[in-house]
Amino acid sequence: MKTFDEVYELLKANPKRRLAVAWGVDEHSVCAASMAIDAGFCEATLYGDRKMIEAVCQKENIDIAKFNIVDVPVELKAIQEAVTAVHEKRADVLMKGLCSTDKYMRGILNKEWGLLPPKAVLSHISVMQHPNYPKFLVFGDMAVIPLPEFKQKIAILKYIVNVCKSLGVANPKIAAVAATEQMLDGMPACVEAAMLSKMAERGQIPGLVDGPLALDVALNKEAAAIKKLKSEVAGDADGLLFPNIESGNVFYKSNTQLVPGVRTAAFVAGASAPCVLSSRADSIDTKLNSIALACLQVK
Amino acid sequence: MKTFDEVYELLKANPKRRLAVAWGVDEHSVCAASMAIDAGFCEATLYGDRKMIEAVCQKENIDIAKFNIVDVPVELKAIQEAVTAVHEKRADVLMKGLCSTDKYMRGILNKEWGLLPPKAVLSHISVMQHPNYPKFLVFGDMAVIPLPEFKQKIAILKYIVNVCKSLGVANPKIAAVAATEQMLDGMPACVEAAMLSKMAERGQIPGLVDGPLALDVALNKEAAAIKKLKSEVAGDADGLLFPNIESGNVFYKSNTQLVPGVRTAAFVAGASAPCVLSSRADSIDTKLNSIALACLQVK
Repeated sequence: MKTFDEVYELLKANPKRRLAVAWGVDEHSVCAASMAIDAGFCEATLYGDRKMIEAVCQKENIDIAKFNIVDVPVELKAIQEAVTAVHEKRADVLMKGLCSTDKYMRGILNKEWGLLPPKAVLSHISVMQHPNYPKFLVFGDMAVIPLPEFKQKIAILKYIVNVCKSLGVANPKIAAVAATEQMLDGMPACVEAAMLSKMAERGQIPGLVDGPLALDVALNKEAAAIKKLKSEVAGDADGLLFPNIESGNVFYKSNTQLVPGVRTAAFVAGASAPCVLSSRADSIDTKLNSIALACLQVK
Repeated sequence: MKTFDEVYELLKANPKRRLAVAWGVDEHSVCAASMAIDAGFCEATLYGDRKMIEAVCQKENIDIAKFNIVDVPVELKAIQEAVTAVHEKRADVLMKGLCSTDKYMRGILNKEWGLLPPKAVLSHISVMQHPNYPKFLVFGDMAVIPLPEFKQKIAILKYIVNVCKSLGVANPKIAAVAATEQMLDGMPACVEAAMLSKMAERGQIPGLVDGPLALDVALNKEAAAIKKLKSEVAGDADGLLFPNIESGNVFYKSNTQLVPGVRTAAFVAGASAPCVLSSRADSIDTKLNSIALACLQVK
């Protein structure tokens, strides 16, 4: 698949996934859930104050009957009930409503009724459809792990590989991004990229991994040719592993802010179920794509 | 000024600057120097093997008479002579030819005949003209300092301010970039952004500085409005101070690789004269813009 439209087509052919929206009482999350239902690939339960939900539906002209509603008028309790539903397999995908990211993540991390497998690494994985790149780009982490340790990078890399596969890429090519393609021993991003490349070469981790690669040679065959790089990944990356949150965040925001036609999706990987973590500033398209991407990860 | 074309117009009205090209014997640097001469804002001296220069000029159909040539057939010696010419004020701008970045930088750093003032911080400053942003973006460091310490960030910020001013921005607005606009005490990029903001507010450093700002709110007024940010910089940045080399590099390469119509320039600031440090993979436009930008910095 190369576009989100193809993802929607595939999802329609799958069984409908069950979405649990934690404190789903604001227009952003209710509208996104409504559109996902209308797109035909999920059903949704809103956990929140029924009166607030009714008001939003009225204002946005949404037929409230399309939702299941669990009337919980207290934010923290609503989060707990939504997370518990996923924990108990009564729902497939968790989604953030009006609650803060902090409260939402603490719900996922709860030891009794949360979604965290032992030793799990939670990471934010994004997918970008770019008008000037011929296929999806899957990357992380741009929102959850500030400076991943090596073991966390391995986890993020595995999530990227899995998402690439869910999008139909049989043998994903992952660039471990750095500021240069030279293996400079003074730069941790370069050193760890070399380590990951070798681990992939030895079959210790999945995917076809090469790094360090600067973004130009990761994405552009010509730039790689000028620099005489021998690399199966260079110029043809499916995935980008960023060395720190700032570089991932800048990649995401530079493209979403400055490039018309870019479409994105994201979710939190590493929990026992995919978790959608949209921000208020996300577009409706991004919110809907993110629900679709999360549904696509459900086994 | 909002475009490089305007920069060229201004430069033509200034006295011609004198360019010293270190080991200027390859087609990339010779062509760029030739175009800069033709553009009417500089004269150029090539330090290198005359036979190699003659061969390049013949191949590229360039009139060799437009250059001054100092025939030095040995690379390191040619670098030394070019740097010395700038050191002794016989040239205004240094430019890298075929020599490696490493040898070039060591020339600049030489204690006897180099270009390093005491306690100077060398940093790579870039300028981007973007089809989807209404003015120049000046940013650093994407190529020289891997992880700037706080004092180095202050130096980089001053260089960004100076370059903004050279481009006609009287009171430059600088965003100290992070992955979020929240002042999260666990993220050094956020902490140091807050420190820089306060120092600018107190008049300790120049410019109108705000941070932490994620790239969306730095560049987009709407995103800033959605998040209810009160900031004179948000949505209207002239300059971007990146917290590490990877984020700066990703910003540069994402835009140059994935956005048609982006034009860039860069130079090394902090030496006693501006130094041009183009890479083989740079386009001719970037190389020429970089010479122009460096010439614009000459006092």
